Amino acid sequence: MMIEAFKEYHIEIEEINILDATDRVLAEAVVAKENVPEFNRSTVDGYAVKSSDTHGASESIPSFLTLLGEIKMGEEAKVKISSGEAIYVPTGGMIPEGTDAVIMIEYAEKLDDATLMVYRPQSVGENVILKGDDIKAGERIIEKGKKLTPQDIGVLAAIGASKINVYKRPRFFIISTGDELVDLDEELTMGKVRDINSYALYSLIIKLGGEISGSSIVRDDFELLRSSVENALEASDVVIISGGSSVGTRDYTSKVINSFKGKGVFVHGVSIKPGKPTIIGEGKGKVIFGLPGHPVSSIIIFKVFIEYFIKHLLNIKENINKTTAILDFNFPSSPGKETYQTVNIVERNGKNYAIPTFGKSGMITLLSKSDGYIVLKPHEEGILKGEEREVYLL
Amino acid sequence: MMIEAFKEYHIEIEEINILDATDRVLAEAVVAKENVPEFNRSTVDGYAVKSSDTHGASESIPSFLTLLGEIKMGEEAKVKISSGEAIYVPTGGMIPEGTDAVIMIEYAEKLDDATLMVYRPQSVGENVILKGDDIKAGERIIEKGKKLTPQDIGVLAAIGASKINVYKRPRFFIISTGDELVDLDEELTMGKVRDINSYALYSLIIKLGGEISGSSIVRDDFELLRSSVENALEASDVVIISGGSSVGTRDYTSKVINSFKGKGVFVHGVSIKPGKPTIIGEGKGKVIFGLPGHPVSSIIIFKVFIEYFIKHLLNIKENINKTTAILDFNFPSSPGKETYQTVNIVERNGKNYAIPTFGKSGMITLLSKSDGYIVLKPHEEGILKGEEREVYLL
Repeated sequence: MMIEAFKEYHIEIEEINILDATDRVLAEAVVAKENVPEFNRSTVDGYAVKSSDTHGASESIPSFLTLLGEIKMGEEAKVKISSGEAIYVPTGGMIPEGTDAVIMIEYAEKLDDATLMVYRPQSVGENVILKGDDIKAGERIIEKGKKLTPQDIGVLAAIGASKINVYKRPRFFIISTGDELVDLDEELTMGKVRDINSYALYSLIIKLGGEISGSSIVRDDFELLRSSVENALEASDVVIISGGSSVGTRDYTSKVINSFKGKGVFVHGVSIKPGKPTIIGEGKGKVIFGLPGHPVSSIIIFKVFIEYFIKHLLNIKENINKTTAILDFNFPSSPGKETYQTVNIVERNGKNYAIPTFGKSGMITLLSKSDGYIVLKPHEEGILKGEEREVYLL
Repeated sequence: MMIEAFKEYHIEIEEINILDATDRVLAEAVVAKENVPEFNRSTVDGYAVKSSDTHGASESIPSFLTLLGEIKMGEEAKVKISSGEAIYVPTGGMIPEGTDAVIMIEYAEKLDDATLMVYRPQSVGENVILKGDDIKAGERIIEKGKKLTPQDIGVLAAIGASKINVYKRPRFFIISTGDELVDLDEELTMGKVRDINSYALYSLIIKLGGEISGSSIVRDDFELLRSSVENALEASDVVIISGGSSVGTRDYTSKVINSFKGKGVFVHGVSIKPGKPTIIGEGKGKVIFGLPGHPVSSIIIFKVFIEYFIKHLLNIKENINKTTAILDFNFPSSPGKETYQTVNIVERNGKNYAIPTFGKSGMITLLSKSDGYIVLKPHEEGILKGEEREVYLL
């Protein structure tokens, strides 16, 4: 539903240097303009030969070839080799026209400067990477939506692509609501708590590859929240309203979202646990997420909804970071709700076990002490100790 | 041996804002200066009560309490509650002295503005987070060596820690050697290849949390390489000399390292496959790695040796990124060598299978098409299809 509502959404594209491209998301497929390698290349230190000249060669009856000198590393092999001839080539060097194999120095011996004895038959292509063997010019080598790894950067360098088109970093604006919130540099008086969510969300956004166009703490007041959201809609692609753990705040978060031109709130309260007070809406063409005030719920909802949304938006192909583990506990279901249970993973006898972590509602330490979480579908009647399940890593 | 040789090595510490701390490594344990929360806090919208006043309450025989109004969100609860009294508290609000539980609004009803009927008994502490329940002042909450996650940033915000001490990013200098190398902006003439390793290593260093203090491409020449390494030793913590796939280059890489004051080369050729020409040495108190010229070997050696070294240096506690998978193939061993086999992971019927990826020596696409690698120990006599093994993710 969320995806359907935002199918017109798009993130702009920018050209960047591949040195800045680690973890950026490719906005269009990359097609190789060069072959890799551009020439037939030796994979060993040895002698380039016509393989047919070595057939029947052995320790007792070597083949005798005329040695023509050497090809130097990084130089073009301009010589043409005829039957009965050989030439020295270093690892990575170009093998000349007329040759189709390289015999390793271990299996050959120089009788004199012009004569080589070869002790082993070579097959066609032995110890050679042919032109285009690694990458062919015209080949699509990396697909749109790829989050670029060091290996991908290596591939881009191999084909001489110094600049590529990636999606711009999605811009987020974080608004924390709540009369109880004080920022880190403020004095913590009785009844107040630190604004945790802005900081945790900031870090989640950075890890997701986004950037923060702004953030603010807003009192529980309709007009203040509305003007803050209006400002945020101008400055960003995604607006996150965090908090409002009480019923009243939730209500006017919806009212604020509905006050802008657009679809307004279309998801109000998701049936997952924890995470009830989650709102998804649209205003002025931008997506607005209303996240629960509890830090634990807030972080899990971010990972479940916002990460999913951004991955869809940027066509990201990568799987979610997860592993499997054997449950070390029986766990009851919450009928009709998707339940997210935080766990730790411990290794015993080479197998991973998931152990539940528990804490009272709203504890931030619950998450920092957990490795990940498991998901129970609404129809499941609980899970039994010994079952193997997927663990989504935090 | 490497660790022993560099036990005096250390990376400096710097103080940074927690907004910049994602994935940085904590250089000293963090001790909480505040309690979280600093007061007894309600986890629901409801009425703060003395639990003893609700004992025996039921739908048919409710307890009647005197309602004293409400505590507002973010305000100090200055009132003191006596037996027989109750007061409204929102989720996250402070509960007043004299109360020890909060009854949810669903289980209570206002008879008039001053009278509350309670339909359910409450136990001590029900729906309340006590002062310090989440974090106690004086508690060590994050250990030295922790690579900081969004959850950790949340915890730091919770205790009001806006600045923390982390290790400075280790500075790397990358030197690529080889007469065959041309940079991305140069023309690719016959016999030459693009400098792949500098770019792949650059990206690996960024992902590892390091920074690049410089890089250069150097011809196969002792004096040029020596002056380049001398410059690199001044500017960085770790010097990487990449390439020199031929025997000759390897030899004078060693000579260059040995020409500086220090221990010189103490690991020359590691018995792992691929990765033979790996060199580890010390010059002028800095660590110098000589990596093989083949991009695949180079990346794997980086992950195996350099990542390990940096993790040790910064006391990083995180495990290596790995998962388990069932081998879908028989694989022979290389006796006496540790063998690294690249694989893809595919899911079938909810289980992960590892399928080998093969390519000729030196192919960069081999790695970009693989998800990870498995390690065969030197003493292993190969592995059989159906065995479950750890896969180190690339």
